[in-house]
Amino acid sequence: MLTAAGLILLPLIVALIYGEKTFAAFLIPSAIFLLLGVLFMIKKPKGRAYRASEGFVITALSWLLISLVGALPFVISGEIPSYIDAFFETVSGFTTTGASIVPNVETMSYAILFWRSFTHWVGGMGVLAFGIALFPSAKNKKHDGDGTEAHILRAESPGPTYGKLVSKLRFNTRILYGIYFVITVIEIILLIAGGMPVFDSIVNSLATAGTGGFGIKAASIAAYDSVYAEMVISVFMILFGINFNVYYFMLIGKFKSVLKHEETRWYLGIIAFSVVAIAINISSMYESLAQAFRYSFFQVSSIITTTGFATADFDLWPSFSKIILVLLMFIGASAGSTGGGLKVSRVLILIKTTFREIRYSINPRGVRSIRCDGECVDQAVIINTSSYFAVYMILFALSVLLVSIDGFDLTTEFTAVAACFNNIGPGLSLVGPTGNYAELSAFSKIVLSVDMLLGRLEIFPLLIAFAPHAWKNK
Amino acid sequence: MLTAAGLILLPLIVALIYGEKTFAAFLIPSAIFLLLGVLFMIKKPKGRAYRASEGFVITALSWLLISLVGALPFVISGEIPSYIDAFFETVSGFTTTGASIVPNVETMSYAILFWRSFTHWVGGMGVLAFGIALFPSAKNKKHDGDGTEAHILRAESPGPTYGKLVSKLRFNTRILYGIYFVITVIEIILLIAGGMPVFDSIVNSLATAGTGGFGIKAASIAAYDSVYAEMVISVFMILFGINFNVYYFMLIGKFKSVLKHEETRWYLGIIAFSVVAIAINISSMYESLAQAFRYSFFQVSSIITTTGFATADFDLWPSFSKIILVLLMFIGASAGSTGGGLKVSRVLILIKTTFREIRYSINPRGVRSIRCDGECVDQAVIINTSSYFAVYMILFALSVLLVSIDGFDLTTEFTAVAACFNNIGPGLSLVGPTGNYAELSAFSKIVLSVDMLLGRLEIFPLLIAFAPHAWKNK
Repeated sequence: MLTAAGLILLPLIVALIYGEKTFAAFLIPSAIFLLLGVLFMIKKPKGRAYRASEGFVITALSWLLISLVGALPFVISGEIPSYIDAFFETVSGFTTTGASIVPNVETMSYAILFWRSFTHWVGGMGVLAFGIALFPSAKNKKHDGDGTEAHILRAESPGPTYGKLVSKLRFNTRILYGIYFVITVIEIILLIAGGMPVFDSIVNSLATAGTGGFGIKAASIAAYDSVYAEMVISVFMILFGINFNVYYFMLIGKFKSVLKHEETRWYLGIIAFSVVAIAINISSMYESLAQAFRYSFFQVSSIITTTGFATADFDLWPSFSKIILVLLMFIGASAGSTGGGLKVSRVLILIKTTFREIRYSINPRGVRSIRCDGECVDQAVIINTSSYFAVYMILFALSVLLVSIDGFDLTTEFTAVAACFNNIGPGLSLVGPTGNYAELSAFSKIVLSVDMLLGRLEIFPLLIAFAPHAWKNK
Repeated sequence: MLTAAGLILLPLIVALIYGEKTFAAFLIPSAIFLLLGVLFMIKKPKGRAYRASEGFVITALSWLLISLVGALPFVISGEIPSYIDAFFETVSGFTTTGASIVPNVETMSYAILFWRSFTHWVGGMGVLAFGIALFPSAKNKKHDGDGTEAHILRAESPGPTYGKLVSKLRFNTRILYGIYFVITVIEIILLIAGGMPVFDSIVNSLATAGTGGFGIKAASIAAYDSVYAEMVISVFMILFGINFNVYYFMLIGKFKSVLKHEETRWYLGIIAFSVVAIAINISSMYESLAQAFRYSFFQVSSIITTTGFATADFDLWPSFSKIILVLLMFIGASAGSTGGGLKVSRVLILIKTTFREIRYSINPRGVRSIRCDGECVDQAVIINTSSYFAVYMILFALSVLLVSIDGFDLTTEFTAVAACFNNIGPGLSLVGPTGNYAELSAFSKIVLSVDMLLGRLEIFPLLIAFAPHAWKNK
């Protein structure tokens, strides 16, 4: 809460630069965060160690609180008068979804636009991880062990975890945040070098880094009409969708591990296949095949990384291309990246589990194990991945049912949930790249806000926070 | 093959009664089945015992062969000139899907209409099970054990299996087929008693029993405009969607087991909830709430049992109702019934696994077991159910992608695959209750035929039959 109190003051710098008078919009929520932080500090817990379920509960409730208070700048400034709309927009920001209810984004003030995109950046790597990176507890530094911040980092970090290196990395939050910061700055510099205005370069880079997708132009990235900017953003979207452990491996010189990293290879392979398939499919719609590749490359990068930027109205593309994009929405980016979706590694484990089941049916005396990156995947991870997929689909179906009460067309309802649950942003039809979520009912907006949180926190923390069990047994 | 050679002669009786000259259409395929049967008998296997994977391969290849030859009557009679269309229609029949490419069903001959609906009846309970029920091997009778027909029955019978009583029942194929026959006859009698023509009563009952859904009128069951007939068919669709073990329990007087049967309770509960929700949702479209209930009850029964009959154009219903119907397509009927879909018990296991994972996250020292019907579900069944769901969704997504090459709207493509994979028949939009599958490309028809077989045989047998592994290792 204290970290949030500080972060929400950053847009004031923007307001000062542009001479905007939106101070109250940020000072009031900052004061609320401060008050909450002080209140939570009055009663100190007896021990510093806590259990996994408590880590889940803390993470889920923190995200909820930060979104509830983080929505206030929009309401106080009057730029999004409805609180539910502002809450939707804030959750969409922190969860790096980028689904928007703002019809005229170009009329918003700079400070508010900055705050909107900044939520992407903080949310991408983790709100709580940011706090932990800034203020690591003395005890945590020594022990590197169970029972402290590890549980929170686990709850906030996306994707299934396997392999030893990953689990040790949990405690290197500072290093990961450092890498994140540096790559963001490189993107800002490259965009400015290409002639994009400084403010635009910063907010677009924040939105790219978090794989969020909030644009500050009605036409999203297409507004700049610059092949250079599109290419830079495409490449950086892909970079931010890679498992950050890969960058850590590079940093410590383990290039062999980088090349062997199965998830990254599949992630890049899926991108290459999708870009080619869509480019060929849409080639007749554009002047040249090169142009088809330009739009296909940007859109595939934007959707698989769950960013959600657009340079073309892909709602008009043939259904084969649209289905590929919808499938990419579900696959999502890599585990340990800032992207959402099921995550490539999870899909990989699911596919490998299937092949294992076939092998097992043929030869029941065979071994029931699967391998990733050359190492055996723990049986518990396999079971957890399968259950995750099941609960994911069940909650997905339930959400579509609830949103369908609004009575829009099936494509709108299905892709609205797909785009929110997987933290992408735009879907198809009414919520397509040229549309927005403004027309949906307040009820649907709340359902979709919950979906965004479920997607970002990977379901279980949120479910556990509201399970009576988690609060009862000591 | 020999059983099929006999079964395909049954429509000749119909041809004789109505004085139709379609003898060759059935005699030629019968001769081919006979020839195949004799060929397969020339080389006797050394031992009678075979492994599970061999059972899967036999089942998959038999279904493929029977569909390939069973399509000939349509082609030879000239009533479906295209072989691919005839193959689609036959697979749709045997897999009890009921998806049709026939634009004018009322112009077809009686013998062909009978064959079309009769494939539903045989396919519902199992083509191979029928052969085994007719000609049980002497050895099988004695041993009741592994390594013989058991593997085939397992491959052909739908749903996950748990509990001891079920596994013993495998060998009571004759009893199950007896129950199946008796309930079908009761439905025929009730329909005739209500004034439906005898031929219509028989074919509609065959289609109900197999939860197939081929109608012989352009307007499906709505053509009879009889509340009585609709109610009889609704109730019998529901009855054929119940796990047949329930009827066996009734037969041997174990009424307590019937009342405790969790799957049946959930199945009936889901039907009740859906009927009420849809009736309220569509009430404004009809004269009275009673009429809304009439259409809702029929359609819910038809879709959850994966029959696919229609009395209303549900493609015009509000999207909330349509989403419920699409969800019912995926849930499907009970295991051990003639219905398709994921099966209620599988969905139940998935939901229970989810709750177990939540409990486990809160208390990692707790027990990782789940219970159905008061008994512990085997860990292997849990893992298999989760993998089944994953491979089901992966193949589903792949099929939608392949069908989308045709370039119809997303709702058509999504629901066409949903309706074929889950063995329902009609989907929404172009393949809705008033449409048919004729306009799809030959490629899509082949993809959907494979989907129907995957759905009916529950994926693994078909995958294993085409896995090189299954043919190699001895």
